[in-house]
Amino acid sequence: MTKPSIDFYFDLISPFAYIGSTQIEALAARHGRTVTWKPVLLGVTVLKIMGMKPLPQYPLKGPYLAHDMARLAKIWGVPLHPHSVQGHNSLNAMRAFVWLDARDPDAAKAFARAIFRRLWVDGLDMTPVEACVEEAQRLGLDAAALADGIASQEAREGLRVGVERAIANGVFGAPFVIADGEPFFGCDHFWMLEQWLRDGAWMAPPA
Amino acid sequence: MTKPSIDFYFDLISPFAYIGSTQIEALAARHGRTVTWKPVLLGVTVLKIMGMKPLPQYPLKGPYLAHDMARLAKIWGVPLHPHSVQGHNSLNAMRAFVWLDARDPDAAKAFARAIFRRLWVDGLDMTPVEACVEEAQRLGLDAAALADGIASQEAREGLRVGVERAIANGVFGAPFVIADGEPFFGCDHFWMLEQWLRDGAWMAPPA
Repeated sequence: MTKPSIDFYFDLISPFAYIGSTQIEALAARHGRTVTWKPVLLGVTVLKIMGMKPLPQYPLKGPYLAHDMARLAKIWGVPLHPHSVQGHNSLNAMRAFVWLDARDPDAAKAFARAIFRRLWVDGLDMTPVEACVEEAQRLGLDAAALADGIASQEAREGLRVGVERAIANGVFGAPFVIADGEPFFGCDHFWMLEQWLRDGAWMAPPA
Repeated sequence: MTKPSIDFYFDLISPFAYIGSTQIEALAARHGRTVTWKPVLLGVTVLKIMGMKPLPQYPLKGPYLAHDMARLAKIWGVPLHPHSVQGHNSLNAMRAFVWLDARDPDAAKAFARAIFRRLWVDGLDMTPVEACVEEAQRLGLDAAALADGIASQEAREGLRVGVERAIANGVFGAPFVIADGEPFFGCDHFWMLEQWLRDGAWMAPPA
């Protein structure tokens, strides 16, 4: 019997989601699991619902997170370069993901990976539709259709509903994994996720 | 040559510091290290400097942290029971720790462990001086001297200066470990700390 897929929640704006995205498929595969990528928007969960600032803006925690992301990338061998893009957001790219995901989840994952690399390896902005189109073209996807998709009511609604579902499932940050109902926040918890997938349920999922 | 001690920053108010405190000595010992316990006050770092609320009060994150602390305790075999103490603070207990630490660091660690257990195993308040006195008596320490110590200028100043130093070292939460200049926040990072102690520096410490 096939084991259930695990859910990987990400926002393309999050460097830790990028780092996590490079590890999660292999981690899941080691335990006979596949991964379903699902959207969350930190601008909704962190800023609106939790009423926090973007975490990098906090004194003490901001510098720590910058150091932590660099060393995590080094430990796991993930290319990550500081970039100078400012004022960017992931809304178009996340809509593009949702629109692609409804048609071809593998293409949607490839697109998400390309956007992550665009910012953290190539230092290029992801904000405008043109950025999404460029990455789609490079992947051999129908870029014109994707541009229409990003502007579609389907993508807007799909992302809105997806983020609502994420919140209903208790997701507040990224990366955030839910496996068999059990929540794991952050790359920091991947060791615990791995233990969960290996040893089975050491604790009943939250009610 | 003896390897340098690692610094374990804690606040007696923090359940994750309690859980971490039960693991850190053995973790360090596995790599030939000793542990120096150092004070931090979340009321200063989290509330005043970072301007956050106590983390358990945040929507989404609060329930996650409660679940995370229970499962971490289960995974590591740490006794942890929900308690109904409210409005408590760690100021007297932390002053007691600082005062004891200046005289006998091992007694200070034993006292800190007793206070952690008092709240998370026995469900009793740590706030009043009497609570500190009671735990000191049980440990066979000079309880009357400790009561005077808590009220002393030395303890007040010692805690104030200790917390200032913690902040100067980038400490914002608890538990927080600094090993060879490298910072590790949270029990979630103990796997990375262990890797650091085992494999040596995979990255230069932050400037």
